[in-house]
Amino acid sequence: MQPLIAPSILSADFARLGEEVQDVLEAGADVVHFDVMDNHYVPNLTIGPMVCKALRNYGISAPIDVHLMVKPVDRIIPDFAKAGASYITFHPEASEHIDRTLQTIKEHGCKAGLVFNPATPLHYLDHVMDKLDVILLMSVNPGFGGQSFIPSTLEKLRQVRQRIDASGREIRLEVDGGVNADNIKDIAAAGADMFVAGSAIFNQPSYADAISKMRQQISQVESGN
Amino acid sequence: MQPLIAPSILSADFARLGEEVQDVLEAGADVVHFDVMDNHYVPNLTIGPMVCKALRNYGISAPIDVHLMVKPVDRIIPDFAKAGASYITFHPEASEHIDRTLQTIKEHGCKAGLVFNPATPLHYLDHVMDKLDVILLMSVNPGFGGQSFIPSTLEKLRQVRQRIDASGREIRLEVDGGVNADNIKDIAAAGADMFVAGSAIFNQPSYADAISKMRQQISQVESGN
Amino acid sequence: MQPLIAPSILSADFARLGEEVQDVLEAGADVVHFDVMDNHYVPNLTIGPMVCKALRNYGISAPIDVHLMVKPVDRIIPDFAKAGASYITFHPEASEHIDRTLQTIKEHGCKAGLVFNPATPLHYLDHVMDKLDVILLMSVNPGFGGQSFIPSTLEKLRQVRQRIDASGREIRLEVDGGVNADNIKDIAAAGADMFVAGSAIFNQPSYADAISKMRQQISQVESGN
Amino acid sequence: MQPLIAPSILSADFARLGEEVQDVLEAGADVVHFDVMDNHYVPNLTIGPMVCKALRNYGISAPIDVHLMVKPVDRIIPDFAKAGASYITFHPEASEHIDRTLQTIKEHGCKAGLVFNPATPLHYLDHVMDKLDVILLMSVNPGFGGQSFIPSTLEKLRQVRQRIDASGREIRLEVDGGVNADNIKDIAAAGADMFVAGSAIFNQPSYADAISKMRQQISQVESGN
Amino acid sequence: MQPLIAPSILSADFARLGEEVQDVLEAGADVVHFDVMDNHYVPNLTIGPMVCKALRNYGISAPIDVHLMVKPVDRIIPDFAKAGASYITFHPEASEHIDRTLQTIKEHGCKAGLVFNPATPLHYLDHVMDKLDVILLMSVNPGFGGQSFIPSTLEKLRQVRQRIDASGREIRLEVDGGVNADNIKDIAAAGADMFVAGSAIFNQPSYADAISKMRQQISQVESGN
Amino acid sequence: MQPLIAPSILSADFARLGEEVQDVLEAGADVVHFDVMDNHYVPNLTIGPMVCKALRNYGISAPIDVHLMVKPVDRIIPDFAKAGASYITFHPEASEHIDRTLQTIKEHGCKAGLVFNPATPLHYLDHVMDKLDVILLMSVNPGFGGQSFIPSTLEKLRQVRQRIDASGREIRLEVDGGVNADNIKDIAAAGADMFVAGSAIFNQPSYADAISKMRQQISQVESGN
Repeated sequence: MQPLIAPSILSADFARLGEEVQDVLEAGADVVHFDVMDNHYVPNLTIGPMVCKALRNYGISAPIDVHLMVKPVDRIIPDFAKAGASYITFHPEASEHIDRTLQTIKEHGCKAGLVFNPATPLHYLDHVMDKLDVILLMSVNPGFGGQSFIPSTLEKLRQVRQRIDASGREIRLEVDGGVNADNIKDIAAAGADMFVAGSAIFNQPSYADAISKMRQQISQVESGN
Repeated sequence: MQPLIAPSILSADFARLGEEVQDVLEAGADVVHFDVMDNHYVPNLTIGPMVCKALRNYGISAPIDVHLMVKPVDRIIPDFAKAGASYITFHPEASEHIDRTLQTIKEHGCKAGLVFNPATPLHYLDHVMDKLDVILLMSVNPGFGGQSFIPSTLEKLRQVRQRIDASGREIRLEVDGGVNADNIKDIAAAGADMFVAGSAIFNQPSYADAISKMRQQISQVESGN
Repeated sequence: MQPLIAPSILSADFARLGEEVQDVLEAGADVVHFDVMDNHYVPNLTIGPMVCKALRNYGISAPIDVHLMVKPVDRIIPDFAKAGASYITFHPEASEHIDRTLQTIKEHGCKAGLVFNPATPLHYLDHVMDKLDVILLMSVNPGFGGQSFIPSTLEKLRQVRQRIDASGREIRLEVDGGVNADNIKDIAAAGADMFVAGSAIFNQPSYADAISKMRQQISQVESGN
Repeated sequence: MQPLIAPSILSADFARLGEEVQDVLEAGADVVHFDVMDNHYVPNLTIGPMVCKALRNYGISAPIDVHLMVKPVDRIIPDFAKAGASYITFHPEASEHIDRTLQTIKEHGCKAGLVFNPATPLHYLDHVMDKLDVILLMSVNPGFGGQSFIPSTLEKLRQVRQRIDASGREIRLEVDGGVNADNIKDIAAAGADMFVAGSAIFNQPSYADAISKMRQQISQVESGN
Repeated sequence: MQPLIAPSILSADFARLGEEVQDVLEAGADVVHFDVMDNHYVPNLTIGPMVCKALRNYGISAPIDVHLMVKPVDRIIPDFAKAGASYITFHPEASEHIDRTLQTIKEHGCKAGLVFNPATPLHYLDHVMDKLDVILLMSVNPGFGGQSFIPSTLEKLRQVRQRIDASGREIRLEVDGGVNADNIKDIAAAGADMFVAGSAIFNQPSYADAISKMRQQISQVESGN
Repeated sequence: MQPLIAPSILSADFARLGEEVQDVLEAGADVVHFDVMDNHYVPNLTIGPMVCKALRNYGISAPIDVHLMVKPVDRIIPDFAKAGASYITFHPEASEHIDRTLQTIKEHGCKAGLVFNPATPLHYLDHVMDKLDVILLMSVNPGFGGQSFIPSTLEKLRQVRQRIDASGREIRLEVDGGVNADNIKDIAAAGADMFVAGSAIFNQPSYADAISKMRQQISQVESGN
């Protein structure tokens, strides 16, 4: 599958969010990564369905990738589906009924995924591979600022890549946390094909240059360099 | 005290929030009302400290009135103080240590207040009048859409007005929910002096006209008409 | 209003519930009292909507008075409305949004009420009298077996009776816990007009005699004896 | 071990529960499956210990298999043991102290088991095989109506069957959710030996025919057809 | 009733607790005040039943006054009764079933009381005065260090004193938080007759002098000076 | 690594804790094991940071090994670090963000570890071996008294020993629950090198003899006997 660049709007300017998202998409981004925190599952509160809806009303038509850092998760899923979410991912620890939550996401017309914290074991994948469209590995701890990429994520990516390949199914392998132009090649080499980046894009002078540099790095993996 | 008009940004366009807030302030609004929901205390999730901070960075200097519909409340207070909040109000049911929470808000340099749901009794005021800068009465149930002003709020406003006057202290009496140009005169007559309005401002063709019409209605109370 | 006798099916035989309820109604009971416990709000778990529905399917047409000893309460209200509940009552401590919960019950076509534990203060009534169809005072602590009527309930009943009369509205005053033929006269004299009784009916040789004896006692109050 | 048919009384008529259970046992069922939901672990509330006790008082002597869909689980275990439960099973996610909960069940004289939701990994079995009398695999998500058998349960059954055989211990392998005469042969072939069925028995014109048809299907596996 | 001095062992040396408690009792203290925090109701964790038991085993025979800053409260009450508690007090917000909790304490042979946080309204007293042996007013927020006496507690003490006198019952009026030799006279004058003091005793060179100075101040109130 | 004996102060005399700890260290113990229970994660409440601090003030300089049986864990970690903890261990089920919690402990200057209940699977180790200083296996269920060593812990110890050896890192393998002179040899042989013992030391006439006997047993393993 084609690699996807997914800028996290947590690093965008919330006072001009429509413009920011439009700019970063025009600069070459593929997907809008939308970080939802509820001050319970993580110690922060960010943005909810109304902000997602506002982006759709503004004219954003790119996929919106909603990462739920909330617990519990079920009640808010229909809200995000109605607000225009394309993907909805959640943490397995945040739902007692993971299979059911995955079904709920799909019944609402969205792609569904599980998110793994750095220390979360992969066994939550054992019985749901046939229901996943995306697997997201956190390479930092969600909800806390100023962290850098945790190196052992590379090995974990390789393990998930194997599971995906063995399943014979089309499942995205996404990574989020401390991704930048310097480490994205290694991350891609470990098997990721969907890359969330926040400050590595929004804090750069040119969004287009930042994204383009990332794509070059990724393409070296694809071409075997 | 001068009556204050506080547009609720829940009804603004979140894709162009800086511009919206600037427009409504230029149209004559006094205070930015900022509704924080956490998907636990109320069944919705809205916006958090980062969005507040973005408004300050955009250049908004008017007071920001943060209404916490979250439970528990203590952990997020310093975050909002740092993000530029002027007022922070919370529901007494959402804190085990109400006196402490009020102190925490003040220690962080903000004005502090309690919010009363439509059915919440007023006895939570009994031992904290000396620590309050604002009392907010909900005239709809927070966190649910499409409601109209609950009429019995008028009597409750009169009761709180009496308590404030008896205290001899400068405490704002704020009201939130279904306030519009048609009922604001009665609400002001019942003792309110700080008026949250959402769709009654943001859904109107001219913010300035909407606000001006509200002020005219309020001034009739002040002049005794 | 006519006094109502409401046998609590907690004392009935759950293996033959339809028959038991039919018998007690034919013996003169007015209302079926349906005790719902969730093992969270109280340390017991009893019966839910499916059992209520089964009674309706069995042909029971008398009012069913559902007393929710659950927390939170909102999610299960539509289930009980669909299952045939006539009244739905809940504890104010069990809902953050009491006014909203009352509205929800009514929107689903049921009569709504608040329940007061023995120690719960009456101030929860202050701002909702216009939304109540029934006020239920617990005269024992709910969820625990083998208790007898708490005498101070009589004074509390008198206080609620005054509030109801002052409101000028038709609100039932219900009492539950340790009610029997020996104390029902005093309870009626204190202002109650809806009487829950469990073992005092279902553990008697004749349901009809037990209910008839209660009615005689109540009628002495009405006739001023 | 002989295969056991365990009709779920959730599909029985709760107004005549004693009679229903007696009928289904006379029709050839082996075990009464008793589904306990608390409106917290799953979004439904069903029946508790008093209903179990009523069945024993009615004269039901068959094993009662109590499936706790409640969280937490420890407090209610002695209540069900006293009410006549034979088996008590719970979800590993619903107890912080799984080993202790298993011990508690056994100390109260019942057989103990763990229940696995469709997505729950099997690693919870790793250190408790010596304490289990039954392992229950959910083939639908518990607490939600109208679901059909999840096909990947077959593979999961085979994995558990291997673990049981490797342990050399007598542990029942139970399955619950969407089981009927059409799929029971495959389920038995995958290793199950205890079959919960609800509507596939209680919604049929003849309980005896329904059960008999299931047994025929199962026996084909045993005989190697 | 004779005024009681109750040193809080939170200010004692936990490495030599038996000796400390013995010393302060020999210095004239009447009651050992035992502060239990659970890191949930308050953000701190202190000491539990085993420490209480150790004091009894050490030979301490004075009353031990256990103040539960825990939520929920019911499970731990029998543990403290067995460990030798004389009084057990709890916060009304920490129990759904206040009347029941008071009964539980008494059934276990202890005196029972309610504790009021600085902002907690007094209406929790309305229906339980006949079950109370002590009412404890917090004059600081429990669970947080380094606070001084909140002045409005004096008025609240006077209100409770009136309620106690009106009840005609023997109920202790206890105060806890920032009590010292400088303010104890005013506190006694406001109606308190049981005084918790921590650093004002344990941080003084002579426990006996500290206690004696307090008694002198209190006696001036009693003698009308 | 040298085997470490860690007496659990839960079995010491809390009225003379400083002396007890000093005595047991002089008798040859290496580490003070400090059991923290919060009445939520386990049904008991023991001792908190103030007691730890008192031991340091008393002059105890040996390592203090704080075992947190609390949930959630993050807030109290800095308190224990300030109070003098050397190790801080917690249960993976008690933190949503295990990697983050481990980092927090280390940032506060303490050694960090995970604790496994008897039934907890080992997969929580999969992605954090590089962040652990100690792994603690519970050989009884924490928070409940009067239990004996669970035999299957030996096999679990062997599995963890393999993981530690495979990691090539210096990680302590600690065991807690029912350890005594009779079984410590087998426990050491299974791979443990840090031994918590409570009554097996504190209830013996001579602490030194008890510890010495344990060391002799352990040394037989080391010497291959």
